[in-house]
Amino acid sequence: MTSVTNNKPTRLGVVGATGYAGVELLRILAGHPAVELHAVTSRGEDGTPVADLFPSLRGVLDAVFRAPEPELLAECDVVFFATPHGVAHAMAGDLLARGVRVIDLSADFRIRDPELWSRWYGQPHGAPEYLGEAVYGLPELHRGPISEARLIAVPGCYPTAVTLALLPLLENNLVDVSDIIADAKSGVSGAGRQARIGGLFAEVQENFRAYASGGHRHWPEIHQTLAEVAGADVGLIFQPHLVPMTRGILATLYLRPLDDGDWEALFRERYAGEPFVDVMPSGSHPETASVRGTNQCRLALATPPHSGRRMVISAIDNLVKGAAGQAVQNMNLMLGRPETEGLELVPAFP
Amino acid sequence: MTSVTNNKPTRLGVVGATGYAGVELLRILAGHPAVELHAVTSRGEDGTPVADLFPSLRGVLDAVFRAPEPELLAECDVVFFATPHGVAHAMAGDLLARGVRVIDLSADFRIRDPELWSRWYGQPHGAPEYLGEAVYGLPELHRGPISEARLIAVPGCYPTAVTLALLPLLENNLVDVSDIIADAKSGVSGAGRQARIGGLFAEVQENFRAYASGGHRHWPEIHQTLAEVAGADVGLIFQPHLVPMTRGILATLYLRPLDDGDWEALFRERYAGEPFVDVMPSGSHPETASVRGTNQCRLALATPPHSGRRMVISAIDNLVKGAAGQAVQNMNLMLGRPETEGLELVPAFP
Amino acid sequence: MTSVTNNKPTRLGVVGATGYAGVELLRILAGHPAVELHAVTSRGEDGTPVADLFPSLRGVLDAVFRAPEPELLAECDVVFFATPHGVAHAMAGDLLARGVRVIDLSADFRIRDPELWSRWYGQPHGAPEYLGEAVYGLPELHRGPISEARLIAVPGCYPTAVTLALLPLLENNLVDVSDIIADAKSGVSGAGRQARIGGLFAEVQENFRAYASGGHRHWPEIHQTLAEVAGADVGLIFQPHLVPMTRGILATLYLRPLDDGDWEALFRERYAGEPFVDVMPSGSHPETASVRGTNQCRLALATPPHSGRRMVISAIDNLVKGAAGQAVQNMNLMLGRPETEGLELVPAFP
Amino acid sequence: MTSVTNNKPTRLGVVGATGYAGVELLRILAGHPAVELHAVTSRGEDGTPVADLFPSLRGVLDAVFRAPEPELLAECDVVFFATPHGVAHAMAGDLLARGVRVIDLSADFRIRDPELWSRWYGQPHGAPEYLGEAVYGLPELHRGPISEARLIAVPGCYPTAVTLALLPLLENNLVDVSDIIADAKSGVSGAGRQARIGGLFAEVQENFRAYASGGHRHWPEIHQTLAEVAGADVGLIFQPHLVPMTRGILATLYLRPLDDGDWEALFRERYAGEPFVDVMPSGSHPETASVRGTNQCRLALATPPHSGRRMVISAIDNLVKGAAGQAVQNMNLMLGRPETEGLELVPAFP
Repeated sequence: MTSVTNNKPTRLGVVGATGYAGVELLRILAGHPAVELHAVTSRGEDGTPVADLFPSLRGVLDAVFRAPEPELLAECDVVFFATPHGVAHAMAGDLLARGVRVIDLSADFRIRDPELWSRWYGQPHGAPEYLGEAVYGLPELHRGPISEARLIAVPGCYPTAVTLALLPLLENNLVDVSDIIADAKSGVSGAGRQARIGGLFAEVQENFRAYASGGHRHWPEIHQTLAEVAGADVGLIFQPHLVPMTRGILATLYLRPLDDGDWEALFRERYAGEPFVDVMPSGSHPETASVRGTNQCRLALATPPHSGRRMVISAIDNLVKGAAGQAVQNMNLMLGRPETEGLELVPAFP
Repeated sequence: MTSVTNNKPTRLGVVGATGYAGVELLRILAGHPAVELHAVTSRGEDGTPVADLFPSLRGVLDAVFRAPEPELLAECDVVFFATPHGVAHAMAGDLLARGVRVIDLSADFRIRDPELWSRWYGQPHGAPEYLGEAVYGLPELHRGPISEARLIAVPGCYPTAVTLALLPLLENNLVDVSDIIADAKSGVSGAGRQARIGGLFAEVQENFRAYASGGHRHWPEIHQTLAEVAGADVGLIFQPHLVPMTRGILATLYLRPLDDGDWEALFRERYAGEPFVDVMPSGSHPETASVRGTNQCRLALATPPHSGRRMVISAIDNLVKGAAGQAVQNMNLMLGRPETEGLELVPAFP
Repeated sequence: MTSVTNNKPTRLGVVGATGYAGVELLRILAGHPAVELHAVTSRGEDGTPVADLFPSLRGVLDAVFRAPEPELLAECDVVFFATPHGVAHAMAGDLLARGVRVIDLSADFRIRDPELWSRWYGQPHGAPEYLGEAVYGLPELHRGPISEARLIAVPGCYPTAVTLALLPLLENNLVDVSDIIADAKSGVSGAGRQARIGGLFAEVQENFRAYASGGHRHWPEIHQTLAEVAGADVGLIFQPHLVPMTRGILATLYLRPLDDGDWEALFRERYAGEPFVDVMPSGSHPETASVRGTNQCRLALATPPHSGRRMVISAIDNLVKGAAGQAVQNMNLMLGRPETEGLELVPAFP
Repeated sequence: MTSVTNNKPTRLGVVGATGYAGVELLRILAGHPAVELHAVTSRGEDGTPVADLFPSLRGVLDAVFRAPEPELLAECDVVFFATPHGVAHAMAGDLLARGVRVIDLSADFRIRDPELWSRWYGQPHGAPEYLGEAVYGLPELHRGPISEARLIAVPGCYPTAVTLALLPLLENNLVDVSDIIADAKSGVSGAGRQARIGGLFAEVQENFRAYASGGHRHWPEIHQTLAEVAGADVGLIFQPHLVPMTRGILATLYLRPLDDGDWEALFRERYAGEPFVDVMPSGSHPETASVRGTNQCRLALATPPHSGRRMVISAIDNLVKGAAGQAVQNMNLMLGRPETEGLELVPAFP
C-alpha cells in the first residue's frame, strides 16, 4: 500500500459523528493538515450543520451532517466508524469491496472469535469473514500490520490503558500472568452520548461507584491481547469504576513480579521511540488532567510497601488515546504520514 | 461507667471545630437530643460565631468559637478532638485526669506501638502512657470496650471502609491473609480544610489520580486491625486515589478465598444487628452518593469472572462513618444512649 | 378544616415519585412524625421497591411503587402530585370529589387564567373549573388560605426565590414595578429526571449558559404574583441560567428604589416570624450550598456602587423550598400541624 | 516599530509563570511557530523544570523556572507579566528602558488615573510615569495603537467579556448609557492559583454565589473603557458571581435601547473582520464550554418578552480571551505577525 501524495488531501468519511468519539474525531481531523472531511454522517441529523449541534466547532468546521449513503461513503479514501456495535458489521464489507479503507472505533472487529464476540455483545456477529484481515490497531504493538491494513479495529479505551501498562512485562515474561488485577476508573464520556437517566449530571455528580462487577465487554478484548502477547492464558481481573468527571481513565494494576529487576528501565527502553507513551519516574502519580485532550498515555511504576507485588499506573484520555486520537494515529500509519501528524495536542491546564 | 440520666444533657466540647470533620460533628451534634455543645473551640477563630464561618449552621447553632482553654474543656463531660495529629497527645491527659472522657478523631491514639506511630507521623509520640487504655473505636469490632472507655481513638476513614469489608472473612479465616489488595478512592474533603494549592477546585476538578503509592499513614492502622482480627500477620496492599468529589469513599477489595462458601450469607449474619452496616445483594454496586451525609457503610460482594478471586466493595461517607458520625456512635455507646441516637440521617438524592 | 388527631398518622399519596421532586418528597416525608406513606406511585415502576430505584432510601423507606390507581389514591387523606404538567389536571378533580386534599407540585394550577396557561404550556387547560379554589401555596404570602385549602398549587422553584426577594418591597410600594430585573441561576436538577442528552454529565460539567431567553414558563407565574401583590402591572425581566451543579437557585435582582429607606430593617420585620426565610446582614452573599437540602430561603440586600439601583440576592434549594419542602410546609398548614414539622433539615457542609 | 523577521524567533520572557494565566500562556506560546521561550521565571521555583510543576507540559516544554533577574529578562524581545499587581510596576520601567517590550496581564497599567487605581488596589501606584504610553490591549478597540506600543495593559477577564458585548452599541449611541447592568458569572480559575480555603474544591463544588456586591476592581476598568467609547459618563452595575467550574465567563447584559434597530446586523457588521468575535444568531445561548481553551468571544442578542429592554450575552474563556490568549493576540499585533498565529485553538468537547 503506497502512501498518498502530499498534494491532494485524503478524503475522509466519519460515520456516527454525533457521539462523543465522533465529535472528538472531527475536532482532531479539523486540525489535520493532510485530510479533507468529505462525508460527516448521521442518519438523525441529515442536513444539520455540524457546528449547530456542536458549537465548539463554530468557525472550525463547515461540514453538514449527511445520511450515511453508501455512494457518498464510497467516494472517500478512508471511512471511520464511530457507531454503536453492529453498524460497522453491516457497512464495512461494501466499503472494503469498493477500495475504501475502514477504521472502526466500535467493538465490531476487536474480538477474533465471532462466537466469543456474540456472547459478550448479545447478537450474532455480522461480518465474521472480515475478522481475518482486521488488525487490532494498537500501534505500540502492531505498527507494521497497521500500516498495511485495509480494516482497523481501534482498541477500546480501557484495553488501551491496561494493555500499554503490561506490554513490556508480558513480552519479557516478568510477571505471573495467572494473577493480573486491573482496577480501572473512567470518566463518564466513555458511556457515550445517549439519552439515559444514569448519565444525567444529577446522577453522576458527587458519586463514585464500581460497575459491571459481573463482567465487562472489555474483559475479553483485554484478555485476548494479553494472552497473545504472553503466549499463554492469563488470569485477569478487570474491574471498572465511574468517576464524576467527563474525560480520563486511570488504571491501577497489581502484579506479582517474577524477578526483582528494574522495571522503569525496561519500560523506558520498550517505549523509547513511542511518541505517545510517556514513562514517568517511578513513584510518580500520573494525572488524568495532564493527558486531557491529548493522545498521550502516561505510565508510572510503584512498589507497595510490605507486599510482594508491584503496581503500574496508567492514564489516558478515553476519547483520544482511547478512541479518536488512536484512530487518527492508525490513519497516519496507514497513509504513510508522520505518525504524530494532527496529534500534537497540548492539554490546557487547569 | 454508668450512663447519664436523661434529664440533664451531656456537656460536650469540640476542639478543632473549624475543619471538615469538626463542622460535620457540629451538624450531627446540633441534632442530637441528649447533648449540649458547651465548648466549641478554635484558637484562630476565638470570638467568631460558628454560623459566621459556616453559614450552613445559621439558625441551627448559636455557639461562638472560643479558645481551647483547659478550664473550659474541663467543664465538659466528653471532649472531641477534630484536630491535626499531636494536639490530642498534648491535651488529652489533662482532661482524662479531670474526669473528662475523650473521643479523638485524629490519629493520635490509633496505633498501639508508639515507635511505629512515630515513624509514620514524623514526630515523637506525645502520650504513650495512654495507649494502653485507648480503645480503637470501631463499634462493629469493639462495642463492649467502647462502652467502658475513657479514651477513644476514632478510626480513620479509609480504615473504616476497608476493615468493615474484611471483618467477617478474617474472623472466619476465609481468605488468604497474605494477599489482600484494597484499592480505595476518596473524595477530597478527606484531605482537610487547609489552604493549599493541591486542594484548589481548579486542580481537582476533572482530574483523577492515585497518591501515596509509596505508603499511606492509614496502612499501619489498617494492618494493625486486620492482624489483630486474623490473629496473624497480613499481607496488605492499600492504594488510595483522589476522586473529584467532596465526600465519599469507595474501597474495592480483591481477595483470594480459602473455600467456596456463601459470603453474602456470612456477611448478613455477621452484620445482622448492626444499625450502620448494610449488606447489599451480591452483584450490587454501592454508590457513595447513597451514603452521603449518613453513618452507613454499604457492602456488596462480587465474583470476578475467570479468576480465583472474590471482591468486596465498600462505600462510606468519609466525614460521617469515616469520622464525625462514628465518633458520635462511640459517644452514644459510652453514654449508654441508643447507639443510633442523632444518627438517623437520610441522604438527600440527588 | 379541622386538624388531624395526633394518634392516627395522616395517610399520604405521592404520584410521580420517580422524579427528583418526588424522591425528595419521599426523603422528607420519611422523616415526618405525623404521616404515613400509603401510596407511592409510578406507572412505569409498578412493583419495584422504592429503595431499589433510590438506594439512598435503603433502610429508610420500605414502600413499593404502585400504579396510580384512583381507588388506591382515594384511600389517602392528602395526595401530592410530582408529575409532568397535565397529570394533576386529569386526576385532581376525582380525588377532590372523594374528599382527598391535593397538593400539586406541577404547574397545573399555578396560573389563574387558563388561556394564559394554555399559551405557555402548549396544550389546553385540563381542569379550569378548579382554578377558583386552587391556592398558590407560598406560605409567606397565603398562609391563611393555605390552611383552609383543598387544592394547593405549590409555587415553582424560580418563582419562590424571586417572589420572596420582592414581597416586602412590593407590599410597601418601595420599588419601580415597571423595571424589575431578575437574573436567576439554577442547578440542573430543576430540569427533572428525564433521559435527555442535554442533561448528561458530559454536557453540563464545566459549562455555564443562559437558556429560554425568549421566555420561560415561570415568567407568567412570577408576573402574576408580583402584579397581585403590587396591585398593578409589573415590568419584569426573568432570565434563567444553568449552573453545573445539582441543586440550588440563586437569583440576583436589580431594582430601582423609590425612596432611600432601610430595606434590611424592612425585610427583617416582614420576615420576623417566618421559620424559613433568613434575612442576612446587608452585603452578605448567600450561598446555595448553605441552604442545600433545607427549606430555607436566604436573602441579602446590596447597593451597587455608583448606580441608582439596589440589589436583592436570594438563595434556595430548588428541590426543597422550591418544591418538596414547600409542599410539606403547605401540608403542615393544611393539617394544622406545626409548620416546621419534618422540615428541621440541617445542610451537611461541605 | 518594525516587525521581526521570520527567520529568527522572537525571544520571550514570562514572569510569574506559576499562576493559571502564566501556565496558559506557556501552553499557547509552546505552540506558537515564531517565538522562543527564553526566560520562564518564578522566584519560588527557581531551578524546577516547568513540566515538573505542570505535568500537562511534559514533552511539550523543556524550560526550567529561573529567578526573574533583570539581566535575564533584558535578553528578551518581549516580556509578559502574569504576576500579582505591583510587580509590573516595579519591573516594567527598567525593561522598557532596555528596549524590551512589555505585555502586562496584571491590572498595573489598566487604569489611567493613578489615584483611582490606588483606591481600588489599596496601594500607591508604582509607575505612574508609564501610564501615558500604556495601551489598553483590547484589539477590537485599539488595534492600531497596540501595533505601535511598547507597553500593553492586557484587559481583565470580566472587562473583556463585558466590553465586547457593548462596543457596537456605545459606538453608535444605541443604548441609554446611564443604565447598563452586567450580571457576570465566572469559573474559579479567575481567582488565581493561591492557596486559600475559599478556593478549595470542597468549598466551591455544588455552590453558587455572588461576591463583591459592594464593588469589584474590574468596575473602574470597565467603566473607564465604556465612558471612553461612549464619550460620556456611564451608569454601570457590574455584579460578579462564582460558578463551580474551572474556566469560563458568561456575562448577561440588560440594556435600555434608544431605538428599535436590528442589533444583530449591527454586531455582525462591527465584528465582521474580527477573528475572535463570533456573533451568533439572536436567541442563541452561547455556552462557556464552546469557547473553552480558545480565544473566542461568543455574543448573542435577545429580547426579553414584555419589557422595554434588550439583552446581550457574552461568553469567553477567562484564561484565554480573558488573559493569556488576548496577551498573545497583542503580541502578534506588536510583532507584525498574523493576528491569529498560535491562537487557532479548537475546544475539545465534551
